[in-house]
Amino acid sequence: MSAPKKSLEESTLERRVVFEGQFLKVRRDLAQMPDGTTATREFVQHPGAAAMVPIGTDERILVERQYRYSMGAIHVEIPAGKIDPGEASLQTARRELLEETGYEARQWAFLTRVHPAIGFSDEVMDLYLAKDLVLRERSMDLDEFLEIEWVTLGWMMDELRAGRLPDVKTQIAMHWLDRLYSGLWPWPAFDL
Amino acid sequence: MSAPKKSLEESTLERRVVFEGQFLKVRRDLAQMPDGTTATREFVQHPGAAAMVPIGTDERILVERQYRYSMGAIHVEIPAGKIDPGEASLQTARRELLEETGYEARQWAFLTRVHPAIGFSDEVMDLYLAKDLVLRERSMDLDEFLEIEWVTLGWMMDELRAGRLPDVKTQIAMHWLDRLYSGLWPWPAFDL
Repeated sequence: MSAPKKSLEESTLERRVVFEGQFLKVRRDLAQMPDGTTATREFVQHPGAAAMVPIGTDERILVERQYRYSMGAIHVEIPAGKIDPGEASLQTARRELLEETGYEARQWAFLTRVHPAIGFSDEVMDLYLAKDLVLRERSMDLDEFLEIEWVTLGWMMDELRAGRLPDVKTQIAMHWLDRLYSGLWPWPAFDL
Repeated sequence: MSAPKKSLEESTLERRVVFEGQFLKVRRDLAQMPDGTTATREFVQHPGAAAMVPIGTDERILVERQYRYSMGAIHVEIPAGKIDPGEASLQTARRELLEETGYEARQWAFLTRVHPAIGFSDEVMDLYLAKDLVLRERSMDLDEFLEIEWVTLGWMMDELRAGRLPDVKTQIAMHWLDRLYSGLWPWPAFDL
């Protein structure tokens, strides 16, 4: 593939927060287009997030069932959460794993970074693998009602193929994990 | 995996649009939790979207390079767009393919449905495969500055593994396509 043209780039002329809710913040910037004209760029300003696949004994994976209000349905997802101020994404991953499942992991590996909503948010999400798990205690956020369960990768891939894993972070993590277990890609180092 | 408990479900007590920008709409509902308490649920109300993998001769894939203002970078993505009022997602996919690349596809297959931002949006995105392509004319939206290019699936998978395909719709579509070409999963019917 040829190198991208510099002429695709846009620059910021004005930057403004136009909405700040209890949870969401919306930016509306004025941007200069490659041809010199201007355009409005509106998007959700997001602190970033981290998600992880907790891998237990017998290669089982720890997943959550959680009601997602916006979708009006219960979804199977890997544990994840938003980055708190000052946190690195690995710290977020460690904190969320403990808060949501009660487990600590003694070995971590970085998997990949994704942009879930590239069209309307600046969210960056880091995906990790976590293994060598130790059960501590579960201390959920007040707002969170979720169930955790150990499942096999095979079950997850069947669910994915059947269209029952529409959550993108979960689907992407499973695709990666399947490529690692099948030997298509080498495992990342558990050095975190 | 055991059946989910009904006790995870939340119900709507109040529904309100708290922000309506030029592009984004934010809802803030009051919801009743499984234990009877109430909580605020704030999310971007999205019209839905469609994306497709245009497959050409020699199994090449048509992708776009587009500057994403929110990320401040140029990204390689499959063509996609938001659903217009009254459109079915397949119509959106046909329209966006023509508008963004100038191609029409005579054969379509449904791939899967994903939720890109399950934590803060109700967006539903349908992914399709498109083949038997015919070049019409390119009639881009005024706001869009993008380049199109034919690439191989092998190149895309290398980019993905290297962390250079962070856009979730593109990454998920490539994972599926790779499983189809490798024979791990059967091809969906091109009957649309």
